[in-house]
Amino acid sequence: MTEPLSFEPPRGMRDFYPEDMVWRNRVFDAWRQASVSFGFQPYDACVVENLALLQRKSGEEVSEQIYHFEDKSGRKLALRPEMTPTLARMIAAKQGQLAFPVKWFTVAQCFRYERMTRGRKREHYQWNMDIIGEESVSAEAELLAAVALALKNMGMPANGYRIHVNNRALLSEMLAASGIAANHHAAVFLALDKRGKIEDTEIRDLLIKEGLDETAIAKTFDLLSVQTLEQAAARTQADSPAVKALRDLFELATIYGIADRLVFDISVIRGLSYYTGIVFEAFDTERKFRAIFGGGRYDSLLTAIGGQPTPAVGLGFGDVVVVEVLKELLGETAATEKRGVIIGYMFPEQREVATALARRLREAGEAVELMLAKQKPKQFFARASASPAADAIFIGPDDVTNGCAKRKNLTTREEKEIALV
Amino acid sequence: MTEPLSFEPPRGMRDFYPEDMVWRNRVFDAWRQASVSFGFQPYDACVVENLALLQRKSGEEVSEQIYHFEDKSGRKLALRPEMTPTLARMIAAKQGQLAFPVKWFTVAQCFRYERMTRGRKREHYQWNMDIIGEESVSAEAELLAAVALALKNMGMPANGYRIHVNNRALLSEMLAASGIAANHHAAVFLALDKRGKIEDTEIRDLLIKEGLDETAIAKTFDLLSVQTLEQAAARTQADSPAVKALRDLFELATIYGIADRLVFDISVIRGLSYYTGIVFEAFDTERKFRAIFGGGRYDSLLTAIGGQPTPAVGLGFGDVVVVEVLKELLGETAATEKRGVIIGYMFPEQREVATALARRLREAGEAVELMLAKQKPKQFFARASASPAADAIFIGPDDVTNGCAKRKNLTTREEKEIALV
Repeated sequence: MTEPLSFEPPRGMRDFYPEDMVWRNRVFDAWRQASVSFGFQPYDACVVENLALLQRKSGEEVSEQIYHFEDKSGRKLALRPEMTPTLARMIAAKQGQLAFPVKWFTVAQCFRYERMTRGRKREHYQWNMDIIGEESVSAEAELLAAVALALKNMGMPANGYRIHVNNRALLSEMLAASGIAANHHAAVFLALDKRGKIEDTEIRDLLIKEGLDETAIAKTFDLLSVQTLEQAAARTQADSPAVKALRDLFELATIYGIADRLVFDISVIRGLSYYTGIVFEAFDTERKFRAIFGGGRYDSLLTAIGGQPTPAVGLGFGDVVVVEVLKELLGETAATEKRGVIIGYMFPEQREVATALARRLREAGEAVELMLAKQKPKQFFARASASPAADAIFIGPDDVTNGCAKRKNLTTREEKEIALV
Repeated sequence: MTEPLSFEPPRGMRDFYPEDMVWRNRVFDAWRQASVSFGFQPYDACVVENLALLQRKSGEEVSEQIYHFEDKSGRKLALRPEMTPTLARMIAAKQGQLAFPVKWFTVAQCFRYERMTRGRKREHYQWNMDIIGEESVSAEAELLAAVALALKNMGMPANGYRIHVNNRALLSEMLAASGIAANHHAAVFLALDKRGKIEDTEIRDLLIKEGLDETAIAKTFDLLSVQTLEQAAARTQADSPAVKALRDLFELATIYGIADRLVFDISVIRGLSYYTGIVFEAFDTERKFRAIFGGGRYDSLLTAIGGQPTPAVGLGFGDVVVVEVLKELLGETAATEKRGVIIGYMFPEQREVATALARRLREAGEAVELMLAKQKPKQFFARASASPAADAIFIGPDDVTNGCAKRKNLTTREEKEIALV
């Protein structure tokens, strides 16, 4: 006796039934359309990546959560937790041949072995958009305008979300002005990023461990009291490049028509260690959900993996949170869309006519669901109503004799005649 | 010192640069459009599957080639080698709630650890289309008509490929008529399927191992001499259901307009053990490449994994061979398509106008690549020519003064004026 198999997917992994795909396609289509509209070119790579690459440049927390295994030749492989190291590898491999800046996008499945709390999954799809080779904030502005279009394409209202923007270089300048040496900054960023996830006393412990004294720790926490870019500017030099970059970004945001959604937020830091400049995270306006997307500038990643120095900025936008937000704002069924036609027939004698009609309508560009066996009218219309089709055509013997049938709109019940020849 | 990282993907895995995505998108778009046109609904599942499910129902050869690993809780997981077991699991999980027949499709990445010969990869994407719950050959005909539309959408000429069709039930009837008992048929199918891959003497050895005597082996090989459906019919009973199914399928193929591409071929058997009825495999007409797609009827799979008895038919269509065939028939660059517009500017002072123009054209639905820094005209037009854009707009100080610029078609060199306000 073989033991019964589970019909469940592996723990933390998702099945997508057609009703789930309605939302997923809405999100994926919006991502792709915005990418194309903004002149980003598609790329992709296998979900299986070399473990060494992922360990080299992912954040500490991510590294612990990598699904890894050996293949039959003993190669150390992994399911990628994020796309950026792979992108950096692909850029580095062709660095001499590419015309920079390059603007690339992908929709990539990523895996993290996390504890299964708060509805977290162990895999998600992530839209990645990156601009490699452009040092000015034109790149950040272009990315954020593209992501705003994607959200609009999904039906997200402009006042439904806010993009919180900061600059790690600004934090660095402020820390330096407080007398905290540059070699501590990376550790301070990672500690401060945990705020809200762990207690402030635990953050304090991390800072003590990094070697900061009481005064430095107090100054570090004090930075987070900054509310506006003007307050931040007052704490750095008058010609601060970090402040200038943020001001330039907000100015460009006005030209792109997205300034209403951008807010300066000193608390945005991002968990990944490779960010060097502007960082951003978007939330629903009421902040009921986790971040919708996030990203920033990572000018040192290419050199870190062995490539040439190359400025870069990118974002990651997962498929889970945005659907939660959209369902909250628009309703569970907002993505449903009726389209195309369903065709059925009463007796085997009408199969040929029904099939020929399906062929004709498909050749004219319509989506046609053809019933593959005879049905009673009641059976057919029950199925038709539950299907995604907008219209229904049911063919009986008289219709064939008359050479025409009725095409019925399943919502309005309106009928119009359609020729069967 | 850290050792230098490889910029190569893991062995057998593919990177897709934008130039590779041109072909991939052509194939994926054709698959999706044909699926939607034929009323198939999308589904998907995670590439990580329970190992037990895959081992239960994949063919013997496939089972040895599964990438498998344990997660941190000791769960035995695997990268799926094919989608059908996952589909069967998903159907079984909701068998009481689904309205049969269901018609589902997906484009799924699948993995096989194969020896790296003849340019084979260890992963590919596979279009899967399945009809679950329909016992008549209407289902097979619908599938084959949909796949013919997908090939047409890709630019494949109707005479560029042939779909070779057989029926395992017909082979069973013929084996039974030759006195070979039903319990041997599955093993005989798997042995005969190896024809062309291994020597006939090795196939003979497999049949001896299965317990067939010399007479039975001679009769088995003799079956493969059958050239036409009429010859096959002559070797079974007059009312053979297997012959009737094939005749019905060829008749429906005429109504669907695909009869010119279908050929009866007794040698088509398929390697997977779960097929029970009609099986098919498509090849380029000159048979220079491996199979483009294949599939068939598998009426027992649902019961084998513990679900209710449910007839089913499906196909798998990989992304590798078809691109080889299309490149051979249409040329390497056939998929390239110029579209959208690229916008550049000469001095920082024109950035705002260029950005505002990009915004306006994007809002009008155009794909716009905006340069993110100033360029000299020569630099800009060199980049524009190498880009996928159809048109180029370069903005200098005079254009801003005049309130209009030139939109240049990069192929014909024609120019027309475009307002900058």
